[in-house]
Amino acid sequence: METISENRCYGGTQGVYSHASNACNCDMTFAVFLPEEAAHGPVPVLWFLSGLTCTHENAMTKAGAQAWAAEQGIALVYPDTSPRGDDVPNDDAYDLGQGAGFYIDATEAPWDRHFKMWTYVTDELPALLAEKFPLDMSRQSITGHSMGGHGALTMAMALPGRFKSVSAFAPICHPTASDWGRKQFAAYWGDEANWGPHDATLLMQGDGFDGPILIDTGTDDQFGDLLGTEHFAQAMAAKRQEGQIRLQKGYDHSYFFIATFMEDHIGFHAEALYA
Amino acid sequence: METISENRCYGGTQGVYSHASNACNCDMTFAVFLPEEAAHGPVPVLWFLSGLTCTHENAMTKAGAQAWAAEQGIALVYPDTSPRGDDVPNDDAYDLGQGAGFYIDATEAPWDRHFKMWTYVTDELPALLAEKFPLDMSRQSITGHSMGGHGALTMAMALPGRFKSVSAFAPICHPTASDWGRKQFAAYWGDEANWGPHDATLLMQGDGFDGPILIDTGTDDQFGDLLGTEHFAQAMAAKRQEGQIRLQKGYDHSYFFIATFMEDHIGFHAEALYA
Repeated sequence: METISENRCYGGTQGVYSHASNACNCDMTFAVFLPEEAAHGPVPVLWFLSGLTCTHENAMTKAGAQAWAAEQGIALVYPDTSPRGDDVPNDDAYDLGQGAGFYIDATEAPWDRHFKMWTYVTDELPALLAEKFPLDMSRQSITGHSMGGHGALTMAMALPGRFKSVSAFAPICHPTASDWGRKQFAAYWGDEANWGPHDATLLMQGDGFDGPILIDTGTDDQFGDLLGTEHFAQAMAAKRQEGQIRLQKGYDHSYFFIATFMEDHIGFHAEALYA
Repeated sequence: METISENRCYGGTQGVYSHASNACNCDMTFAVFLPEEAAHGPVPVLWFLSGLTCTHENAMTKAGAQAWAAEQGIALVYPDTSPRGDDVPNDDAYDLGQGAGFYIDATEAPWDRHFKMWTYVTDELPALLAEKFPLDMSRQSITGHSMGGHGALTMAMALPGRFKSVSAFAPICHPTASDWGRKQFAAYWGDEANWGPHDATLLMQGDGFDGPILIDTGTDDQFGDLLGTEHFAQAMAAKRQEGQIRLQKGYDHSYFFIATFMEDHIGFHAEALYA
């Protein structure tokens, strides 16, 4: 693991690191914020999975999460959204290939050699973090934005016991019924019969999540039709799933929206992590 | 004036606008955050002047100021750092030309046709803002980072009565004695005999500022030698100037440093603006 940068931030450290990933078969970059408390012992972890076109950097610089994580003594982990590099396949579209890993393991060529973001985020990166940083991996929660909200919700539900709480900002809720999902699943997985249960609405219609859920989505989200919030809301209510979906008046899909409600989300996760 | 974008943010609106500037002889872009209170009447204004290489956008997306400005009911104004465009002279160096206006009015060719950032920020833009936005121009304060800290301090001192308070993050304090200053003043103004009193330390050795000053600078600032903090500290203490200079242990020159102390700065300005 190589240290790209470390900056003092809210009494802790905002670091950026890279390492050779076996899962993705390329070098991967990620960011970790450690609060001051990490100097004295392992701290709980909140994952932030980013959306289409983002790297580890967007949320790290624009979401304002460190302020509240520092207050709560929680570490933040920002993975990249896909494998990257000259050898890694790509596509001219912003929503396929590099920057658009969709947090799944591709099985179709040419994507299958590198696009293993599910394994990377749920297996390889946690193992590396546990080894290199003072993190209490028995206390993890997860959040994300848009495509990253899809990642957070599907990981939380598919890995029972892993995360104490899950939240999301304007998540893609029902990718198998959206152009943000069908196109990518078809490319990465081929025939629809092969698509796994990587769909938050379908998972909620199954076992749901064994903890609290918090979702914020803006009423003026310019991608609202692609998110499928209504399907997830219906599934959550039908299941009597603990949690809340908040439609925030006038907010759109931007980081200004994310930053506005970050304090609420980190407070929500802190309650679960310190319960 | 043209609206580039408006996003809902912390109950208010983060907007980006452009207009034809007479002072700079080109189109200029700026950002304004209006808190929710602006819907009901004019609100106080805090200017944020950015540093080398920045546009209106860097602080708007990375400094996290909107959270605290919303809490205090204060508007934020983020001007650009220089004229821009294909017709505007530039230089290969990051610290001269576009992105490096130094908040002064150039008199030397080729800079003198466009580089009038002093007039733009102290005269033309305030007039436009007063006309177009619900701002209480009798209650203004100013802050900035690095080159923008130099701009904030020099404007506050050169325009007595204009600003209720001034603060700065890692400001260039003594440009006439620094490579961040001498090079640009020589290019924009020619012979040293023509350099105006646009130097915070020299202004502090003169009349100082008729209000409180707050300065934060990191002990690990990678540009510490270029800032000349020690000269300003000496001048402030010698003058018995109301204010404080805080050396923040372990912090560097980055936006992580700025974001960390933004809450303090906006609280400081709010106290002066609502006094």
